[in-house]
Amino acid sequence: MTYQQVIRGQIVTPERVIRDGWLAIRDGRIAALGDGPHPDAHDVHDAGQAYIMPGVVDGQTHAGSYGGLPGLEATTRSAVAGGVTTIVDMPYDSPAPLCDLETLDAKVAAVGRFAHCDCALYATLLPGQSVEMIPLLIAGGVAAFKISAFEANPTRFPRIPADMVLDMFNALSGTAVPLGLHNEDQEIVRTTIARMKAEGRDGIASHSPSRPVAAEMASSAHFLELGFNAEAHAHLVHISHARGFDMVAHYKADGGRATGETCVHYLWFDPDEDGPALGARMKVNPPIRPGERERLWAQLLADRIDFVSSDHASWPLSSKETGSIFTAGAGVPGLETLLPAFFTAAAARGLDAPLLAAKYLCERPARFFGLWPRKGSIRIGADADVVVLERKDHKWDSAAAHDGLCWSPYDGAVFTGKVTKVWLRGQLAWDGAEIMNAPGDGQYVRREAAPMPA
Amino acid sequence: MTYQQVIRGQIVTPERVIRDGWLAIRDGRIAALGDGPHPDAHDVHDAGQAYIMPGVVDGQTHAGSYGGLPGLEATTRSAVAGGVTTIVDMPYDSPAPLCDLETLDAKVAAVGRFAHCDCALYATLLPGQSVEMIPLLIAGGVAAFKISAFEANPTRFPRIPADMVLDMFNALSGTAVPLGLHNEDQEIVRTTIARMKAEGRDGIASHSPSRPVAAEMASSAHFLELGFNAEAHAHLVHISHARGFDMVAHYKADGGRATGETCVHYLWFDPDEDGPALGARMKVNPPIRPGERERLWAQLLADRIDFVSSDHASWPLSSKETGSIFTAGAGVPGLETLLPAFFTAAAARGLDAPLLAAKYLCERPARFFGLWPRKGSIRIGADADVVVLERKDHKWDSAAAHDGLCWSPYDGAVFTGKVTKVWLRGQLAWDGAEIMNAPGDGQYVRREAAPMPA
Amino acid sequence: MTYQQVIRGQIVTPERVIRDGWLAIRDGRIAALGDGPHPDAHDVHDAGQAYIMPGVVDGQTHAGSYGGLPGLEATTRSAVAGGVTTIVDMPYDSPAPLCDLETLDAKVAAVGRFAHCDCALYATLLPGQSVEMIPLLIAGGVAAFKISAFEANPTRFPRIPADMVLDMFNALSGTAVPLGLHNEDQEIVRTTIARMKAEGRDGIASHSPSRPVAAEMASSAHFLELGFNAEAHAHLVHISHARGFDMVAHYKADGGRATGETCVHYLWFDPDEDGPALGARMKVNPPIRPGERERLWAQLLADRIDFVSSDHASWPLSSKETGSIFTAGAGVPGLETLLPAFFTAAAARGLDAPLLAAKYLCERPARFFGLWPRKGSIRIGADADVVVLERKDHKWDSAAAHDGLCWSPYDGAVFTGKVTKVWLRGQLAWDGAEIMNAPGDGQYVRREAAPMPA
Amino acid sequence: MTYQQVIRGQIVTPERVIRDGWLAIRDGRIAALGDGPHPDAHDVHDAGQAYIMPGVVDGQTHAGSYGGLPGLEATTRSAVAGGVTTIVDMPYDSPAPLCDLETLDAKVAAVGRFAHCDCALYATLLPGQSVEMIPLLIAGGVAAFKISAFEANPTRFPRIPADMVLDMFNALSGTAVPLGLHNEDQEIVRTTIARMKAEGRDGIASHSPSRPVAAEMASSAHFLELGFNAEAHAHLVHISHARGFDMVAHYKADGGRATGETCVHYLWFDPDEDGPALGARMKVNPPIRPGERERLWAQLLADRIDFVSSDHASWPLSSKETGSIFTAGAGVPGLETLLPAFFTAAAARGLDAPLLAAKYLCERPARFFGLWPRKGSIRIGADADVVVLERKDHKWDSAAAHDGLCWSPYDGAVFTGKVTKVWLRGQLAWDGAEIMNAPGDGQYVRREAAPMPA
Repeated sequence: MTYQQVIRGQIVTPERVIRDGWLAIRDGRIAALGDGPHPDAHDVHDAGQAYIMPGVVDGQTHAGSYGGLPGLEATTRSAVAGGVTTIVDMPYDSPAPLCDLETLDAKVAAVGRFAHCDCALYATLLPGQSVEMIPLLIAGGVAAFKISAFEANPTRFPRIPADMVLDMFNALSGTAVPLGLHNEDQEIVRTTIARMKAEGRDGIASHSPSRPVAAEMASSAHFLELGFNAEAHAHLVHISHARGFDMVAHYKADGGRATGETCVHYLWFDPDEDGPALGARMKVNPPIRPGERERLWAQLLADRIDFVSSDHASWPLSSKETGSIFTAGAGVPGLETLLPAFFTAAAARGLDAPLLAAKYLCERPARFFGLWPRKGSIRIGADADVVVLERKDHKWDSAAAHDGLCWSPYDGAVFTGKVTKVWLRGQLAWDGAEIMNAPGDGQYVRREAAPMPA
Repeated sequence: MTYQQVIRGQIVTPERVIRDGWLAIRDGRIAALGDGPHPDAHDVHDAGQAYIMPGVVDGQTHAGSYGGLPGLEATTRSAVAGGVTTIVDMPYDSPAPLCDLETLDAKVAAVGRFAHCDCALYATLLPGQSVEMIPLLIAGGVAAFKISAFEANPTRFPRIPADMVLDMFNALSGTAVPLGLHNEDQEIVRTTIARMKAEGRDGIASHSPSRPVAAEMASSAHFLELGFNAEAHAHLVHISHARGFDMVAHYKADGGRATGETCVHYLWFDPDEDGPALGARMKVNPPIRPGERERLWAQLLADRIDFVSSDHASWPLSSKETGSIFTAGAGVPGLETLLPAFFTAAAARGLDAPLLAAKYLCERPARFFGLWPRKGSIRIGADADVVVLERKDHKWDSAAAHDGLCWSPYDGAVFTGKVTKVWLRGQLAWDGAEIMNAPGDGQYVRREAAPMPA
Repeated sequence: MTYQQVIRGQIVTPERVIRDGWLAIRDGRIAALGDGPHPDAHDVHDAGQAYIMPGVVDGQTHAGSYGGLPGLEATTRSAVAGGVTTIVDMPYDSPAPLCDLETLDAKVAAVGRFAHCDCALYATLLPGQSVEMIPLLIAGGVAAFKISAFEANPTRFPRIPADMVLDMFNALSGTAVPLGLHNEDQEIVRTTIARMKAEGRDGIASHSPSRPVAAEMASSAHFLELGFNAEAHAHLVHISHARGFDMVAHYKADGGRATGETCVHYLWFDPDEDGPALGARMKVNPPIRPGERERLWAQLLADRIDFVSSDHASWPLSSKETGSIFTAGAGVPGLETLLPAFFTAAAARGLDAPLLAAKYLCERPARFFGLWPRKGSIRIGADADVVVLERKDHKWDSAAAHDGLCWSPYDGAVFTGKVTKVWLRGQLAWDGAEIMNAPGDGQYVRREAAPMPA
Repeated sequence: MTYQQVIRGQIVTPERVIRDGWLAIRDGRIAALGDGPHPDAHDVHDAGQAYIMPGVVDGQTHAGSYGGLPGLEATTRSAVAGGVTTIVDMPYDSPAPLCDLETLDAKVAAVGRFAHCDCALYATLLPGQSVEMIPLLIAGGVAAFKISAFEANPTRFPRIPADMVLDMFNALSGTAVPLGLHNEDQEIVRTTIARMKAEGRDGIASHSPSRPVAAEMASSAHFLELGFNAEAHAHLVHISHARGFDMVAHYKADGGRATGETCVHYLWFDPDEDGPALGARMKVNPPIRPGERERLWAQLLADRIDFVSSDHASWPLSSKETGSIFTAGAGVPGLETLLPAFFTAAAARGLDAPLLAAKYLCERPARFFGLWPRKGSIRIGADADVVVLERKDHKWDSAAAHDGLCWSPYDGAVFTGKVTKVWLRGQLAWDGAEIMNAPGDGQYVRREAAPMPA
């Protein structure tokens, strides 16, 4: 029998690296795995000593916040160039969020037209909308729901009032589907920003104080407690401070379904070190906190972080160059750098970088969103989403990036891992120099019908 | 030497009852304590086998919510008839809350004019008010601050926005003074009430669901977390459900200064049992929860409840007889029944009722509000606030009560403990039949300048 | 390329079953794994819908206690017929225990001559022996050390005094090698047995009371605490009562290296139910406790049991038929029934039996004894120790067993899983009817040079 | 009414010091307590600014180990001079331990003949003795039982085998009476000593290593676990290392009745600092551990130490001057220095020394041994065991001590608290210079018939 494709190298399986390994692809899935001599294939790629990783599942992407649904194209081009073979796209598209079957259908269609990688989808509800939409969206395959405690935009990214949060939790209570929160207390953030503006403090150093840790934590506590009362799954989509994971741990110990995610930028940057050079180019919300980075790594090593994502946002640099941290857009491009940055930072700390990346960037988010075992691991039967990662120093230059944005907070950083080949369901998507697949080669992936946890 | 007053009986000290005991009063303070033959005194009261208790310190009274500052008169008359020698009065007076030095002065003056018992005072701030008032009010002797997460009245009992809560915690952070919260999430409560009204469900059975446990708990979580972040003392003034004390316990374990109080009605009533007969006469906020009473007693026995109070409110019965649970006033008279009801309920459960009452109604609130060792215990040097409590069955009849309201949710209940004498700082205030002291015999008591906890 | 062997069926990998799977063997190792069409092989076995499991690693076998080193032959014949491809053999051989390089060499030679399956070895020390032997035995590849707190036999199974236990822990402290304990307090057991004998209580119902839970627990506590003080790995080789796992959990929480194992008979039998029929045929030490079985399953589901073993002992039935529970031999044959009984009991409780068996009978003991990743999982590069387990009811009949003993406490039990094929390092060892390999086809397997846990 | 005696000064009650306080004595009991002007009395002692403390209850005294029952005289003389008004005397008298009604009667008679202070009594059983003696001894009023895991002397201080320990726990299970343990593993200690002797290491620096921490801890773990299994109260009479209190805390958390005591010398000395000067004069068993002192203070401040005692032993100095740490007698005189040393050490650490002394030296041991509320606190109805402690520097000189031994490990230490008056049940026993009462003025005090803890 002849396989479609064989790839050989150091295969990163969930618990161990197969040194002289190979995997074989048939019908777009991983059909065989082995070491030593490999079977025949129409195409054989020998990656030498490079790692063969599962494709990254980015649990938090904002593809359409800026460019609308067509934004999927550049975003997913950037994804595959960074080893991300599945994005879980946020519902806050421009001009309207994904909140009903029409917008779901439109987005699924856009995936089929624009996407270079596979896409799972977050849904949301708008203020005032009935929670009766929830089971319909679940039937439509959405992976999770997300809402915000902070109004970033009245129609596109509104604040959901507490009564509706509780209604949503009650509607989700009997399901395995999580409700995620953008966790910032609106009243505290707005007032604090107004104060700092009045004081003329509008540089990057004012960003974290203007959205205080307390605002993030109080919003998180309120939300986790509502989810606990409803016996539903409450998820914090970005925790910037170790305290957040302590809180999540309390809820887990009390028997609640609570989880927390951090983003790679919280594990990489520190405003005290990087702020002077980057300014608003490192503005994300919640803010990166001074002095917190190593405490977050400690939480990761204690296995209290559920997974790590990019929170990629496709803002043009112009949106950052506004003269004030408060008018600058929040969010940074991060898909293409997600795996290289996480790998580099883990390796620099003496950790087992390939296994940690496979766990926190691939398997954990895939399980969280109900995509495992189809996505997230190199295992028989899984989609042949495969990444070749070479241990090789390369300085990041966003001019060569694929998101069409031409800027990155990582510019100039030296990464020690480089994505040199990516296959999506067995099809070569990135060859280390060029995007090889076409818009629309990505597919919509549905949350697996998952039984409730016992 | 001849004392002013000697009282003999079973003296309830914090850890033990002195069977054939006596206490002697000089200058309004307990100057001696003993057993057997007692010293000379101008007046000797032999209480036989009755308990001689410390005067109750009610940590939550609303004297002026209805009648304004003159309301202190009837309220404190009722207090002394119930063995309460100190109230900690809430700031939500009519027409204006205690929120600055003028209103403090006015209230202190009113105490001097109207009060039959001693009064410590809660202060509050109004929305938009500067926290710079906080140290001034502390210097003025207030015992604690209270705010609400729910607007019961836009001027008298407003909701404080989260940013201001955080400001207040930061202002209180370096002090021992607690910030208390009326812990109900406004958005959830308002929406849920509106829904139930629309459904025509307006009886007492709808009261607890209309202000869901989740609303109370989420509001509590948000507030505790803000206090934790500010390293200040966060206090929940009424917890109606065991989960609230679990939360407080997590904050204590994490090193936070968090506390929680319950009220005697949560330990006495159950809407499933008592609702049909009482209707709105058992309406309090947060609501009494069906099936929760014994779980709260379990929390008390596990020593997870910081203290127990009355939450006495002086509404006329007419405010309850409105035809709908949603228009009925919230709050019940409870000062005069606080000690008898707690004592009766504890004894009925086979507990050591006099020692538990001395702990949760006297010593613990006195310590909490910085009034100990002056108040709260029978000990040398303490104010001679002394109560004679006889073990004697008596059916409660609000017609004979002293709050001028002529109604009570306890009407018809048989109490097994009866307050037959009360001295306030050595002066007879209640002789079992008549109020013996005069309006203005009560004093304003200031929080002791307390060092921060180590 | 043509593999030596291909096996197809439902492949049980550590986290998931590959439905239409296959594995391919080259040079005695699992060289490839896949689903769908399989590669060429000199031999292909299609197991249909049967489970393809990793070979069981029995963490506690007594092959030579009765028949001496030649006992390895019948014992390992029985092992392979039961799907056990590696035994970790206890050191208490007849006539002399494995306690130095000579006895190690002799046993390794005996493995090479008699064993049908692979054998890792426990070593021990004799009372008075120098701990300087420990590093030599580790260099010789032993997997662990075991001692006893109870003298079952003065030379073959002696009690090790506490000072020597501490010496051994200190010698093992810097290594990953565990010290296991037969955990029964000698003084309590001897005295209690003497008492019951004197009272004429010598039936099976007297067995558990004659070796009280307290004796097991006190011995365990003493040992765990010594290991904790020496910062060494302390292991309880058989825990018969849930309390033992609670204790182990405390040591883990305190940062100690403590582990506990139970045996399949504690998960299967209850003396109250089975004693009347089985009598001494269910005698093991520590005894099976009345009413404890389901509490042990609860510990297993809470993941507080490190692994499950057989404690197989090769006593002839005559040693059980002595007329008194106190003279009957302790221990039961259990290798051939280990996997079927565990699988059956797990399935009967509605659990995922193949995954639980792979975890507690294969991967966990392999990791514990430093044999993973060579043993214990179906993964690329592992030894091709492979078991076909069919879901098929069969009544156990020891007359057909392979241990040469012709008795079993499981006689008449209906198992719902049956071992129908076994390969050892790629060689067919059991075909469901006959033992297919020869004595000496088993090999000695050494503990992997394991780094200390971080 | 005229009292027998009035004492004024700073009265140390359990929770607070009464500054200008007094207590009045009638019939040997504290009959009144007050501040300001005091009542009439036949005798009034004004202690000025000195502390008026409850008499110390020493939970661990060895009065008769050396001099037999007559040893009570010098020991209790020393006690009262040190502010100890009750000793709980150990059963290991010379020549025979207190283990039956005859030896109990003899000791009670000796108390009546020799004792200067009150005496509660520990009992023990001898190896082989029936536990049926236990209820008889309890009926005889003994406060607790003690046994040893180490044979210090075959008849006087034997090791009790584990089976008998379990029998004793079972016999005590339904009672509130504790079983205490001298917690050293005999096998480890004997072997280690033999080794060190063989190596010629016989100085004080070898003492702790010769009786390793592991020996103490393993013995403690074994004993606590037996008590836990029997649901009885297990007590460690001296814990020399913080780990011991961690263990006790685990048992408390698991719902067991476990307690632990330390001795004042573990809180004062360190062999690294004091060994060169003191040598065998600081030999106690278990040994004082190098570097452990401040960790024990931390345990005390975390309230994990149940109480603190002297472990006073009346060895002549000659028993210490034997040329080898291994032949030197174990134990030190410590009654007269117990309160001054504890007070001094607590004050030196900035702690509230009078309140801590009242808690750990008085109230806690009195409660533990069932002597409270008669002993242990200054409260109405308690025995008038009263101590005047002045804050005054004085250098300790054993030449002036009252135990007839003329040596002390504290010689030359400067204490900052001095016992200047002691009353025993209202009778002056020590006037700061002379013993004022007579042998036999002390009484036997029985354990109060205590109900089981709920």
